[in-house]
Order: sequence, then C-alpha cells, then structure tokens
Amino acid sequence: MSDRVLSMNLATTRGAWGFAEAVDGCLRHGISAISPWRDQVEAIGLREAVRIVETNRLRVTGLCRGGMFPADSQAGRQKSLDDNRRAVDEAAALHADCLVLVVGGLPRPSKDIAEARKMVADGIAAMLPHARASGVPLAIEPLHPMYAADRACVNTLDQALDLCEKLGEGVGVAIDVYHVWWDPRLKEAVARAGRLNLILAHHICDWLVPTRDLLLDRGMMGDGVIDLRAIRGMIETAGYFGPQEVEIFSRDDWWKRPGDEVVKTVVERFNSFC
Amino acid sequence: MSDRVLSMNLATTRGAWGFAEAVDGCLRHGISAISPWRDQVEAIGLREAVRIVETNRLRVTGLCRGGMFPADSQAGRQKSLDDNRRAVDEAAALHADCLVLVVGGLPRPSKDIAEARKMVADGIAAMLPHARASGVPLAIEPLHPMYAADRACVNTLDQALDLCEKLGEGVGVAIDVYHVWWDPRLKEAVARAGRLNLILAHHICDWLVPTRDLLLDRGMMGDGVIDLRAIRGMIETAGYFGPQEVEIFSRDDWWKRPGDEVVKTVVERFNSFC
Repeated sequence: MSDRVLSMNLATTRGAWGFAEAVDGCLRHGISAISPWRDQVEAIGLREAVRIVETNRLRVTGLCRGGMFPADSQAGRQKSLDDNRRAVDEAAALHADCLVLVVGGLPRPSKDIAEARKMVADGIAAMLPHARASGVPLAIEPLHPMYAADRACVNTLDQALDLCEKLGEGVGVAIDVYHVWWDPRLKEAVARAGRLNLILAHHICDWLVPTRDLLLDRGMMGDGVIDLRAIRGMIETAGYFGPQEVEIFSRDDWWKRPGDEVVKTVVERFNSFC
Repeated sequence: MSDRVLSMNLATTRGAWGFAEAVDGCLRHGISAISPWRDQVEAIGLREAVRIVETNRLRVTGLCRGGMFPADSQAGRQKSLDDNRRAVDEAAALHADCLVLVVGGLPRPSKDIAEARKMVADGIAAMLPHARASGVPLAIEPLHPMYAADRACVNTLDQALDLCEKLGEGVGVAIDVYHVWWDPRLKEAVARAGRLNLILAHHICDWLVPTRDLLLDRGMMGDGVIDLRAIRGMIETAGYFGPQEVEIFSRDDWWKRPGDEVVKTVVERFNSFC
C-alpha cells in the first residue's frame, strides 16, 4: 500500500483555498501530487502556478479541464477550439500528466445527441495535433449519464474507448468512479482500457444516498455506496497503478469545512477505503 | 397519427387527483387508457378500481409497480416476493397489459452491485411462475443510472434484455425515454428488443435542463431535450406500435397544477411533440 499515490484535485478544497493555499495545505499533510482547475491557475497567474509547481517538485496529475466542443455555430466551435489550444499550453507549462476533457453536451436548442457526439469527435480531432506536438495527452472523461444534456455526451467508458480508438495516439481516458460505478459492463470496459493502454487517470470520491444535487453533492470516500477497492482492483488488474486523484464537489458539506479538515479526512479515508 | 394511443400514467396527475378523479379527467379529454400506481388502487380499493375500469372499458397499459427485490436478509427478500405476488394478482384483476418492475437498488449497507443484480434475477425468477399462471407479463424497466443505488440496479436496455433472455417467456421490458435517451447504444438496443419481441411498454416525458431533483423534476414533453419522435421512430422500426404512456413526476410544477390543465397539456404535447 505504501507506494500508492494520492493526488488532490483542487476542486476538493475549493471552498477553503485557492491554488497556493491548497498546495501549502497538501504539503502539510504529505501530499505532493495535485490536479488544479484552470480558473484556479488563472486566479494566481500561470507563471506563479508554474513556479510553485517547480519549486515544490509537485506532480501535476492532470489539468481540469478542456472540452465543451459542441456549439450551435461554426464561430462557437472555433471559440471552443481556441480555448482548448490554450488549455493544452497551460497543461504543458504545468508539466501536467494530461489535460482532462469534459466534452460538452447538447448545444441549445438541439435535441440531436448523435450530432453533438460527432462535434465532440471532430473537436478532439482538431485539437489533437497541437496536443501531440506539445506532449500533452488528452484524457476523455466519460461523465455520468445524468450530465448527457449539459456537460458531456460521452457517458460510458466503452463509448470513450471507441472514440479513443478512432482518434489514435495522444488520446486516452480518465476513469472517475463517480461516473462509471453503476455500469454493468464496467469490469470488461476497464479491462479493455488496460489492453489498449489508454488509462490516463483514476479519480475517486463516493456516491451518496440520497444525492441531493446532480452536480455538487459528491461524497467523501467511505460515505457512499461505491466499492472503491473493487474498482481499484479492476484498474490495477488492467495494468494501471497511477495516482488516485480525489475530486469532490460538495457545495453544502466539504466546501464549507476548513481546508485542513478536508485534507486530513481525505488522507484518512484514502488509507482506509481506497 | 390518428391511431396512436395515449395512455395516462396516473403518477402524472397525482398532485391533483386520485384514481377515480383521474379516470373522469382522462375521459373528459378523450383518453381511455391509463396506468395506475398500486397506492392509488389501494386508496380506492381494488374492487372499486376494477369496477371503474370495466364499466368504462378502460385499457390498463400497466400497473406500477412491482420489484424492489434486493434485501439484506432472507426474510426481507421473502417479504418482497409476497408483495410481488400480490402485485401480480392486482394486475390480473385490473386486466393490465403488464406489471412494471422497478427492480430495486443496493440493500443497505451493501456496496456490491453485482450481488444486488443477482438478487434481482433470482427475485424475478421466483415470481415468474405465478405471473405466467396469471397471464401477467412482467415488464422490467431499466432505470437511469442515477437511480442505481436506491431504486434500480438494472440501468440500460441491453442489461434488461440480457436478463429477459436469461429468464425466458413472460418477461419483457418497459422502455421509458427518460431513463434511456442518453444511451449511445440505444438504437441497437431497441432494435434488439424488437427482434426478441420483448417491448411491453413505451413511456414518455422529457429531460429538463437544468434538472433540479433526481426523482421529481421530470418535464412535460417538449420542454426538455429528448428527441421523442426519433425514439418513437426507433421503437416503431423495431415493430412496437403500442400506447405511449405519459409518466411525469413533477413535485414543484405539474403536480401543483389543476388536473384538467395537466391532461389538456399532455394531449396537446402528445399531438405536437411525440
């Protein structure tokens, strides 16, 4: 167990801390791997964020996030591509293991999810040469089907893997237990991801019962129903032993607590439940 | 279009009406197919509900619902089976086209969804002889993955069809657009359901953006992002031309409106969006 790596996704401490405070807090608790969000990097400035990462020899397990490809106009899709190219540059500057892609949902007022999915494939294909040239792997994150309309129309691991196979080198997947734990085909899909050598990230948190908000009510590991060890077993069996990145959006609970309490709890739960 | 049948799931008018009032309201608007919930039947009494159905020559497109098989003890599973046998008897008395099964989620405090799924298969197998003998088809309803923990661990149409194939004659599926619209394999799965002749029901409503509650914020047809006509096309291509049953749980909107307004709107939207 001692060689397992815990990475802190800085969404988890968003309620208490910005980028610099979160890094200090993580280091106080022995965590030297992080995954920041772009707004957090922007708030402190990319140059200063890079300085903090380099000075502290932090591992950046991912940058959150690129994506949001579908749009109702060519201009909108071009704007998204420009932003995604900047995201690649930021990920490269931060030495991030990958740029996480939340691909986007239906462009209003469309009801055509097949067309949205095509826009996603086209968008990733268009940014891929720049990502490859920059040495930044793109991690497609399949999101839970409850986000299909407004956040991501890639909703199963198998669907993400189909997309990876179509796009070729430079694209893989981020497996977040929150999004995939329910999938009756999970074991087979994780094995397939391993065979294809496409696992770029492993995110953890928990599914609460009841879940009071579709977006901002994720649970701390151990407080919900996800069998985290079983899923870690699938992922390790598939050949991936990389960091487990803790990503918890929790507006009414963890985001209201002091940052040190959050990080301390994450470390405890990581050691007992993950 | 004129031979399409609209059925009113009586959950839709639950805010305003009980069984008898809902039937009167449906008949006023030209609707003679209904699908009641067991608590609504119990409130008026099974005998009176049957009398109303027979007197008005109503078509009962389904009885909601049986299921909820997983339990943390043998006694709990037996209790569920006894209740499911009663549900079959009620469905038979009401001349229902099928008994809809919402299969249940994880029995607390389990995190073993594979085991819960096994309990579901065992539970349906145990009630199936009685259902067959009573002439009541069982309609497994795959529920949206956001209900995997607490309502139903059968979460895709393909998974439900796998279960049907395993269980044999007397079991089919209820396809509710709310639960399956996001599925990247939907078209293939609906075609498979048709080939196997397993489609027992077609439920409609809409997915709202944003969705404010996981259970009770379904939309009226046309108010959300589901391409109802496209899904109807898949289902008709698969050979099913049965009733479209309108099932809307809407605590803060439609359940607060007068019943006649709800039914009038359902009819209008059925004619323009479905």
